[in-house]
Amino acid sequence: MTILIKNGTVVSATGRTAADVLIDGEKIVAVLAPGSVLLGTDLAADVDQVIDATGKYVIPGGIDAHTHMEMPFGGSFASDTFETGTTAAAIGGTTSIVDFVVQYPDQRPLDQYHLWQEKAGGNCAIDYGFHQILSDVGDESLKAMDELITEGVTSFKLFMAYKGVFLSDDGQILRAFQKGAENGAMMMMHAENGAMIDVLVQQAIAAGNTGPYYHGITRPWQAEEEATHRAIMIADLTGAPLYVVHVSAKQAVDQIATARDKGLNIFGETCPQYLYLSLEEQLGAPGFEGAKWVCSTPLRSRAEGHQDHMWQSLRTNDIQMVSTDHCPFCMKEQKELGIGDFSKIPNGIGSVEHRMDLMYQGVVNGQLTLERWVEITSTTPARMFGMYGKKGVIAPGADGDVVIYDPNGHTSIGLPVDADGNPTGRSHHMNMDYSAWEGFEIDGRVDTVLSRGKVVVDGGNYIGTKGHGQYIKRGLSQYLN
Amino acid sequence: MTILIKNGTVVSATGRTAADVLIDGEKIVAVLAPGSVLLGTDLAADVDQVIDATGKYVIPGGIDAHTHMEMPFGGSFASDTFETGTTAAAIGGTTSIVDFVVQYPDQRPLDQYHLWQEKAGGNCAIDYGFHQILSDVGDESLKAMDELITEGVTSFKLFMAYKGVFLSDDGQILRAFQKGAENGAMMMMHAENGAMIDVLVQQAIAAGNTGPYYHGITRPWQAEEEATHRAIMIADLTGAPLYVVHVSAKQAVDQIATARDKGLNIFGETCPQYLYLSLEEQLGAPGFEGAKWVCSTPLRSRAEGHQDHMWQSLRTNDIQMVSTDHCPFCMKEQKELGIGDFSKIPNGIGSVEHRMDLMYQGVVNGQLTLERWVEITSTTPARMFGMYGKKGVIAPGADGDVVIYDPNGHTSIGLPVDADGNPTGRSHHMNMDYSAWEGFEIDGRVDTVLSRGKVVVDGGNYIGTKGHGQYIKRGLSQYLN
Amino acid sequence: MTILIKNGTVVSATGRTAADVLIDGEKIVAVLAPGSVLLGTDLAADVDQVIDATGKYVIPGGIDAHTHMEMPFGGSFASDTFETGTTAAAIGGTTSIVDFVVQYPDQRPLDQYHLWQEKAGGNCAIDYGFHQILSDVGDESLKAMDELITEGVTSFKLFMAYKGVFLSDDGQILRAFQKGAENGAMMMMHAENGAMIDVLVQQAIAAGNTGPYYHGITRPWQAEEEATHRAIMIADLTGAPLYVVHVSAKQAVDQIATARDKGLNIFGETCPQYLYLSLEEQLGAPGFEGAKWVCSTPLRSRAEGHQDHMWQSLRTNDIQMVSTDHCPFCMKEQKELGIGDFSKIPNGIGSVEHRMDLMYQGVVNGQLTLERWVEITSTTPARMFGMYGKKGVIAPGADGDVVIYDPNGHTSIGLPVDADGNPTGRSHHMNMDYSAWEGFEIDGRVDTVLSRGKVVVDGGNYIGTKGHGQYIKRGLSQYLN
Amino acid sequence: MTILIKNGTVVSATGRTAADVLIDGEKIVAVLAPGSVLLGTDLAADVDQVIDATGKYVIPGGIDAHTHMEMPFGGSFASDTFETGTTAAAIGGTTSIVDFVVQYPDQRPLDQYHLWQEKAGGNCAIDYGFHQILSDVGDESLKAMDELITEGVTSFKLFMAYKGVFLSDDGQILRAFQKGAENGAMMMMHAENGAMIDVLVQQAIAAGNTGPYYHGITRPWQAEEEATHRAIMIADLTGAPLYVVHVSAKQAVDQIATARDKGLNIFGETCPQYLYLSLEEQLGAPGFEGAKWVCSTPLRSRAEGHQDHMWQSLRTNDIQMVSTDHCPFCMKEQKELGIGDFSKIPNGIGSVEHRMDLMYQGVVNGQLTLERWVEITSTTPARMFGMYGKKGVIAPGADGDVVIYDPNGHTSIGLPVDADGNPTGRSHHMNMDYSAWEGFEIDGRVDTVLSRGKVVVDGGNYIGTKGHGQYIKRGLSQYLN
Repeated sequence: MTILIKNGTVVSATGRTAADVLIDGEKIVAVLAPGSVLLGTDLAADVDQVIDATGKYVIPGGIDAHTHMEMPFGGSFASDTFETGTTAAAIGGTTSIVDFVVQYPDQRPLDQYHLWQEKAGGNCAIDYGFHQILSDVGDESLKAMDELITEGVTSFKLFMAYKGVFLSDDGQILRAFQKGAENGAMMMMHAENGAMIDVLVQQAIAAGNTGPYYHGITRPWQAEEEATHRAIMIADLTGAPLYVVHVSAKQAVDQIATARDKGLNIFGETCPQYLYLSLEEQLGAPGFEGAKWVCSTPLRSRAEGHQDHMWQSLRTNDIQMVSTDHCPFCMKEQKELGIGDFSKIPNGIGSVEHRMDLMYQGVVNGQLTLERWVEITSTTPARMFGMYGKKGVIAPGADGDVVIYDPNGHTSIGLPVDADGNPTGRSHHMNMDYSAWEGFEIDGRVDTVLSRGKVVVDGGNYIGTKGHGQYIKRGLSQYLN
Repeated sequence: MTILIKNGTVVSATGRTAADVLIDGEKIVAVLAPGSVLLGTDLAADVDQVIDATGKYVIPGGIDAHTHMEMPFGGSFASDTFETGTTAAAIGGTTSIVDFVVQYPDQRPLDQYHLWQEKAGGNCAIDYGFHQILSDVGDESLKAMDELITEGVTSFKLFMAYKGVFLSDDGQILRAFQKGAENGAMMMMHAENGAMIDVLVQQAIAAGNTGPYYHGITRPWQAEEEATHRAIMIADLTGAPLYVVHVSAKQAVDQIATARDKGLNIFGETCPQYLYLSLEEQLGAPGFEGAKWVCSTPLRSRAEGHQDHMWQSLRTNDIQMVSTDHCPFCMKEQKELGIGDFSKIPNGIGSVEHRMDLMYQGVVNGQLTLERWVEITSTTPARMFGMYGKKGVIAPGADGDVVIYDPNGHTSIGLPVDADGNPTGRSHHMNMDYSAWEGFEIDGRVDTVLSRGKVVVDGGNYIGTKGHGQYIKRGLSQYLN
Repeated sequence: MTILIKNGTVVSATGRTAADVLIDGEKIVAVLAPGSVLLGTDLAADVDQVIDATGKYVIPGGIDAHTHMEMPFGGSFASDTFETGTTAAAIGGTTSIVDFVVQYPDQRPLDQYHLWQEKAGGNCAIDYGFHQILSDVGDESLKAMDELITEGVTSFKLFMAYKGVFLSDDGQILRAFQKGAENGAMMMMHAENGAMIDVLVQQAIAAGNTGPYYHGITRPWQAEEEATHRAIMIADLTGAPLYVVHVSAKQAVDQIATARDKGLNIFGETCPQYLYLSLEEQLGAPGFEGAKWVCSTPLRSRAEGHQDHMWQSLRTNDIQMVSTDHCPFCMKEQKELGIGDFSKIPNGIGSVEHRMDLMYQGVVNGQLTLERWVEITSTTPARMFGMYGKKGVIAPGADGDVVIYDPNGHTSIGLPVDADGNPTGRSHHMNMDYSAWEGFEIDGRVDTVLSRGKVVVDGGNYIGTKGHGQYIKRGLSQYLN
Repeated sequence: MTILIKNGTVVSATGRTAADVLIDGEKIVAVLAPGSVLLGTDLAADVDQVIDATGKYVIPGGIDAHTHMEMPFGGSFASDTFETGTTAAAIGGTTSIVDFVVQYPDQRPLDQYHLWQEKAGGNCAIDYGFHQILSDVGDESLKAMDELITEGVTSFKLFMAYKGVFLSDDGQILRAFQKGAENGAMMMMHAENGAMIDVLVQQAIAAGNTGPYYHGITRPWQAEEEATHRAIMIADLTGAPLYVVHVSAKQAVDQIATARDKGLNIFGETCPQYLYLSLEEQLGAPGFEGAKWVCSTPLRSRAEGHQDHMWQSLRTNDIQMVSTDHCPFCMKEQKELGIGDFSKIPNGIGSVEHRMDLMYQGVVNGQLTLERWVEITSTTPARMFGMYGKKGVIAPGADGDVVIYDPNGHTSIGLPVDADGNPTGRSHHMNMDYSAWEGFEIDGRVDTVLSRGKVVVDGGNYIGTKGHGQYIKRGLSQYLN
């Protein structure tokens, strides 16, 4: 099967070019001058399919490097399966995810890795890779890090919060980072001081402050800034590369920027929710509504200026990329568990479908350049996590993961209602009974999506198949100094 | 004329790809999967020329955004003409320069622009653009800025030193920056506090400290840091984008990094001499030898750590790119003017021929990644100064400015000597009777250079022609937030 | 004449003590345990006068280190003479001022010094010293610095603004600072970038923005921050101690704090107006009212948070002391000169009478400790400018400059009005037809003031005499590292 | 008993004054003009004793706010009892110590407090107060904080290291700091990341790196900087005042300085060993010699510049005071426990006798002013820990704690040897079989020491008595903003 994408504007991390893209089978085989006539040969005449991208952007497929499909947590599971989650991702212009294998205490990392391969295998609409969560750093887990790297799992996430579940103490973090410095693995960190937070949560509940708003209040920026700095110091001491996930506090950004200015391989990711949403507006919504936006790190105060600072940090590359931390839970039976006690609300927001749109809106709003949009949603994720060349770029030899994005299209996010204001169904495709992004209007639209050379979204409609997605065996980070 | 560059590794600012590059006439028309067989058509069979790049890097031609060919200064001229200088550049893998039109006081910018067009026209081996130096900011010069932008001169350099020659006072700088904020021009700054320096120079001479070493002593880092900060404040106030030329002091870097972290469009360039050479070793050479390395800003103290800091800043993008500030003067009759009074030594070092090699050695030494080498020598210069798409990238539609760089080659820089140690001629091609880089050994070699689709260097040998180079009409910066 | 101040609380920069103070002639001769019975001798029985300070604070007399009595400027004079100004100072609890001898271009510093001695001699109610303004730094002025130090003028003020009047260029500043580093003089700086400001003023007037508010707009914080940093760099280079006058922008404070953290002898003064008043409220008052508060540096925006930051800086000693920059002009015939052109409004605010009260209100409001109040208004000024021991402390050997301050008293500042709102006279004693502080209510009151052992204010009433004040021959700073 | 100290120079934190000091019983009753003739009465004639201080400094007695007399640790005890330790302190010019009550896990704070009162009661040569160490923060300990404050224990020390012995987790620290914010107690912190250190120690031992030098290597600056920052963040969140003990790393200083610049009540103490001694020279001494200087935080690398930075920080008040962390262990039977395993070496250095001398040498060396010497060794400790007025100042009402220091004297520290180099006894008075300061020569000498009006050291000879020292019931800190 050969496909020619004609007359579009190919956008890369560094610029934009009027060019055609030729795909043969699963791979991009050429990027051509518009018209695709090379040395007198009209290639368009010979391809199986021509896609006209006139007036549209042709970009490398989105890479969401932080998702939690069907993650087990507290007796429940994140509501998207690998099937539903990757289908929604595809529809939103994301052609690769990197999900997290979870090791809980007393579990063996390799066992868990194989378990996750089974969960995802045959179910995904798009390609997928894995990071590994380590919750029990000891000799066996450290040894497993080497083995997992040969399996293409080259990044390992630790937690500074969630005692008894995920938490590593600083000695464990130190040992894991030493291993990362040795074998080149990227160390990822959930940077919040759990011990502080646990006390604050307990005090809030005891004081009768049980609503979702207090989820934010009990996870103050100091807890994030502190943990971020601590992780950086351990990285500094050991020489490990460090990637801080879901950065939401401006003070945490400053810690990362300072470390970066010192020349350290220290990076940060943020998520759409930290750019657009806030403690006051969302977590502080009336009644139990705020539960929709309970995630950790929490939404931050707009009055304190975190959101504006985060946009700025994205512009200046003090924050390097945007993932979703997609971890959906339904209100019914899931989020509702926390009525009367916010600490029982499952933590997570679902955004895997909307990331490309939400970040494109940043371009429309003048917050980002078009090139930077591609960089933070695809090219840098690919480089950061060892997929570049295969993913993250429109170039010969790369997988045919391409998104045709229409700047003249429009996307309304959320649950449509009828004339009486009653919900008439849902407009999103994630398996959630609510949308964290309801009411967001995007001045652009995912038009066509190709995954490894196959059109999976056509004119906005999903036409892909479960199981098309393959495992991405990743190499070491290509983003280090 | 069609050329196919086969089997090389195409390196971009974000990664490397095994790919072939097809050039038709002056333009790149395709980047192809290795083998260049597209849809059954073997393109290699149809091209006029095939260049085998096996084992070599294929990169966008170098862009040296800071040169001063035949610059008039103090009654003399920089010793390279546009012909000799661009020829040397080509040999060294640089396919574009941006030189400086000079307005001295009481001159009209447009007159000078036309004069420079005449100087360069028909003489250059490679393409060339112009920045404009403004030494007399007033109503006429400000108006001329708008006109020059339509001519493709979109960047304007001011000086905070050289009273009576180049110096603008802070009010003039403010007015020029206001204009830049309005019309989008990039403001460039020679950031040294000339008033401080003039006193220090006068005192040094009066104290009998007349040797080249005192050139460095009388231009302390405080003078650079101060002026850098001052320029940043004026940029902050006006909103103009600012590009600080030839940054050499680590403290100046920190000022730029701090401004950048605040989200400002403020950038810095450094030069090979500030990465490799030092006050102690070069300026402090015995006798009058140090005159070879008299340039401004001056070489900095290695004991103070400026060089290491500069490499680090290049890695973390606190400094965005590397130019040469190529401004060659011969020892004989030029540098010699300063015997007995360092302040009379013409300021300048010639490096246009060696920049790509010297920076590649940074890759070999582990100071830079291969991608970053391409970024700081070609891609960012193109984006910074409004040439990207045409220059700075290997992509369809771009000019056929390509360098094939051989990592297995070797380059010895300097003046070869015979068995008795007597010079036997010169190995460089710049019109200088000495080399500032003598003795430098590079673990790599510029193999082949194409300029707008024409091979101008073949196997290291120059086969180009004077007058091939054309004027680059530049647009506004493509690097701004 | 012997006086015993009994039963008060003596407050120093480090703490408070219940103690009596014995004065004999012009000097303090003892600080005693309450009751003043020493070794069985009841000293109270033998003194000429006993002052009961029960329930009151006994503090070293205030030192206002920045006043401009009858300063000639633009054809006019500041409206307070040495007589009226020092009388008002005394009433407000200030027992020493350091005023400024002015050298304008082409004047000889020593001539001016003698002229100022004549102006002040025989006219002052309290003691007075002199700083010297240098507006024409050259060989003669530099030589005069040494001579003036022997006269007790040990601090020299330069300006980075007011071209043609006060402005020194950076070369002149460098030379003066070199001299200061050599002879130990404190260098003082009016740190605003005049060249930038002159352009902004010209543009504002040309645009028809002629009201007092634009005085603030055309002197943006960037102009102050820039000049502050520049002065610091020159101090860093030369090693001179530096004292930045009337700091009003928080960014300037940060520059000083950063320099201080590096160990440099760099200090900052602020004034009551920068702690209490703002661009929006005062300069932005309707009509021409804002002219009352036209001073330079200007009042800053409250929305930007300068005032709060300044209080904080006072607490943490990032700003070391508070002076008034007392430079009064009447509205009538003086400030009025600027109707229709703010740049013609004489710059200055009169506060010499209110400084001690205004800063005490900071204690009441929880902004400062009682000890810090004494430190920033008396002890540090004495140390900073070489008067400590004689001034700035309640200790044997010190001059009998003592203020008894009543925390249970009350002070209303401003011009009283009758029932119809018509002014009925003025409540202040400075020679001004308006008050910059009208409406300020102070929860405390200057009760008694002694100047060199003589009661000059009794129960709030001035009972002193013109000519009592003597010249203070100062030594070098006692505040340096 | 009345004593008159005549003709000396009284030095305070702000300046120096020629003055006499009159003591009646335990208190200072007057500070007088030299000659002590008041209103015709010659007080000198009536006193019991006149001490001539001509040519000497008269300063408030030293306050060492960090000692550990007979501290139980790991089955052993610090080798100085309250008797020997306070005697040595007195000889060295220290008239007050604040020692630490130790709560180990499962002990009740009040029980321990009473136990320590028993230990010290009747045994001390000088006055003593207590801080309380909390190693088991829970409801009972928190409640005890309130009770201890009424007992005059107003400061509480927590540890971020020593798991199972002293360590508090971040939740415990948070709770204790909340209590401190509420009741005004000063929170003190041993800021080292114990979890990191424990791993590094274990790894070093496993690698056969068992000598004292590795004590320093396994407690890197990152561990101190990290913990310091973490403590600051918890203080920021809660609003508690924080005092970081024994700061040794320059990076930790910077964290404190940054917090201070933000206006927080955050302070740091350093110790003489961090100013004079180093990792390379002392810890790296041949064989097991380095054990003499095993203390935590450890001595830092001189090559990294910590010592110079610490002196600078003392000058600029980024570090507020100097204590000793006096915790002596003998080489024999104590330090020797760690032969073959540095982690078993009891941690501690004995310096209580030498602090005043060592810091005075800083004055001689130009590192500190005389005033700053008094401030960091006496006045600030008194203010910091709620003793000012009674201690820390020469003023009426203060305890007669006075040191007469002779700048023309000389002090040799260490163990004298005979002609053959054999020890002939010891020259210090601390109960240690070695001196950490052997070979230090001080250009000054403690001449006379008075404790609460009683001469305890006369001409350098101890003439005091065990049990003279009384408990100091302290108030809340007088140093807060």
